[in-house]
Amino acid sequence: MNLKQLALMLDLSQTTVSRALNGYPEVSEETRRRVADAAKRHGYRPNPSARRLATGKAGMIGYVMPAGGSVDIDPHFVEFLSGLGDYARAHELDLVLSPAEAGDEETTYRRVVANKQVDALYISAPRHADGRIVLAQQLGIPYIVHGRSEGLDFEYPFLDIDNEAAFHSATRLLLQLGHKRIALINGDETQTFAIFRERGVQRALAARELALPPSLVRSVAMTEENGYRATRSLLEQGEAPTAIVCSSLIMALGVVRAVRDLGLTIPRDLSLVAHDDVFPWLKPESFPVPLSTTRSSIRAAGQRIAERLAARISGLETGARGEIWPVDLVVRGSIGGARA
Amino acid sequence: MNLKQLALMLDLSQTTVSRALNGYPEVSEETRRRVADAAKRHGYRPNPSARRLATGKAGMIGYVMPAGGSVDIDPHFVEFLSGLGDYARAHELDLVLSPAEAGDEETTYRRVVANKQVDALYISAPRHADGRIVLAQQLGIPYIVHGRSEGLDFEYPFLDIDNEAAFHSATRLLLQLGHKRIALINGDETQTFAIFRERGVQRALAARELALPPSLVRSVAMTEENGYRATRSLLEQGEAPTAIVCSSLIMALGVVRAVRDLGLTIPRDLSLVAHDDVFPWLKPESFPVPLSTTRSSIRAAGQRIAERLAARISGLETGARGEIWPVDLVVRGSIGGARA
Repeated sequence: MNLKQLALMLDLSQTTVSRALNGYPEVSEETRRRVADAAKRHGYRPNPSARRLATGKAGMIGYVMPAGGSVDIDPHFVEFLSGLGDYARAHELDLVLSPAEAGDEETTYRRVVANKQVDALYISAPRHADGRIVLAQQLGIPYIVHGRSEGLDFEYPFLDIDNEAAFHSATRLLLQLGHKRIALINGDETQTFAIFRERGVQRALAARELALPPSLVRSVAMTEENGYRATRSLLEQGEAPTAIVCSSLIMALGVVRAVRDLGLTIPRDLSLVAHDDVFPWLKPESFPVPLSTTRSSIRAAGQRIAERLAARISGLETGARGEIWPVDLVVRGSIGGARA
Repeated sequence: MNLKQLALMLDLSQTTVSRALNGYPEVSEETRRRVADAAKRHGYRPNPSARRLATGKAGMIGYVMPAGGSVDIDPHFVEFLSGLGDYARAHELDLVLSPAEAGDEETTYRRVVANKQVDALYISAPRHADGRIVLAQQLGIPYIVHGRSEGLDFEYPFLDIDNEAAFHSATRLLLQLGHKRIALINGDETQTFAIFRERGVQRALAARELALPPSLVRSVAMTEENGYRATRSLLEQGEAPTAIVCSSLIMALGVVRAVRDLGLTIPRDLSLVAHDDVFPWLKPESFPVPLSTTRSSIRAAGQRIAERLAARISGLETGARGEIWPVDLVVRGSIGGARA
């Protein structure tokens, strides 16, 4: 059965049937249900080109991807893609990656919108007062920001995890265990997620009238090697920390290696908590000493973002809706009481 | 200066100018050069929509991406994307990811080709007699296979690394160091890369009249945890291997952890070589004992595949051209002589 036959049978126009099947708001709930039932009963599966013709949509989500010799895409992006792909697959949406010079994405944003290549945009890794959000807002295309940007004078739709609360609770737990010199090995400090994490650590320390001196903070690209170097430099300085909070599992591999090279032991000499985006390739349980983590699945975020972008494309979601997910604190063997 | 002005100035049609700038074969070399010079002199930068109109191309490369709850995308895919994006950025090409149920990609292939959504397809992780290659060939769309597929009765364009030679030379080196019981921890055995790697190990062993018994082979998803489990089971059996060749750096993390848990030392008790796709997040030099590797940059492969797909789209590359890259063998501290 094709769209024409289904429409004839229901005595509706093809456009109405197509819109009903694609969740457009102008179709009444009753019609929507009647069409869905008939489609199911007769095994009708919408043809995407017919759908595109009827709805005027490209069926595509756009992502302007920073590229160039000096850009390294974070490996967790594959998990985000898995989640997004899982939802998109069931809804016949595609994802268009448009590579652009990092920091100079404006031309590419304008091009994909002007060419009507995509119906909505995904914006990732936002910074303070991020120009890409201003641009998407001006261009009037549906979009969702993965993360947040401070310093904008308008509200915008986003999905973020509660990075500040996550690092606050990790730090508070370390304080409760008697640690006072707590270091932070963070990601790129110009990105909001890193700013929020540092704020979480600071807030927990401030509640005990403690500070986070610059000598106990490192902001680096989140590689194993940088985790190693940061840890060596932290532990080899005068007032070495007794605990480290770290922004990535891969960096934590480097922390563990540095601790071992210095002849120290986790958690006896150093307590360690790291953020875990949930990555099937490397699990915190599989560290030499199982790793305590702040945990939030980036795959689930990908799925949810695809779902919300689809809702914005069809008009079911509108306005500047923000969604902030709580983060789990998972305690394993890598933390212990501070040495006297 | 726009396309019209440039064409007027050169006394050529807009179509000819556009085709000249986009490397179409029907334009003579002399005209191509004349157009390129004028465009450069007058700072003309082609507008992609005008280009698309003139050439009838979408300006998009397609990738039908396996998705679904049980699919984990290999993290090295981000490096492939970086390479592809680096070339695509400079040539205003986009990449369309069309998620499809793993193993049931045919509908999606037919859809993206029928809708003329993409000008060419990228096919990855091929298996024996891979149906996706047969389909792309039948559909008559330009494509390139990343890797190879045996058992097809036609030639096809591909880019692959020499997996067999890589694992052959790693195994031969271990044999020269006196190892006789050499184990292989491989990836998914239904994928051609894994078949070729096992063949390389077998061929090196056969040259010494040695065999690779099933008890010394593991084929698993390439996670840290699986590397750990495979190593435990290999080393805890009767005739334990004295050397391991391993298909991924992340799995090698698990090998190292298992060796340590068993109270053994690399390379004294076990020699280890792993394949390295070159991954900025985790480097073989950064292993507790620097890791010997077979090395080939997957980012460079992404770049080259984008370049060849662009050439196929514009008709500069035709036919079933195969390209096989040699793999470096990089010796570091993780291998040593076999214990007597």
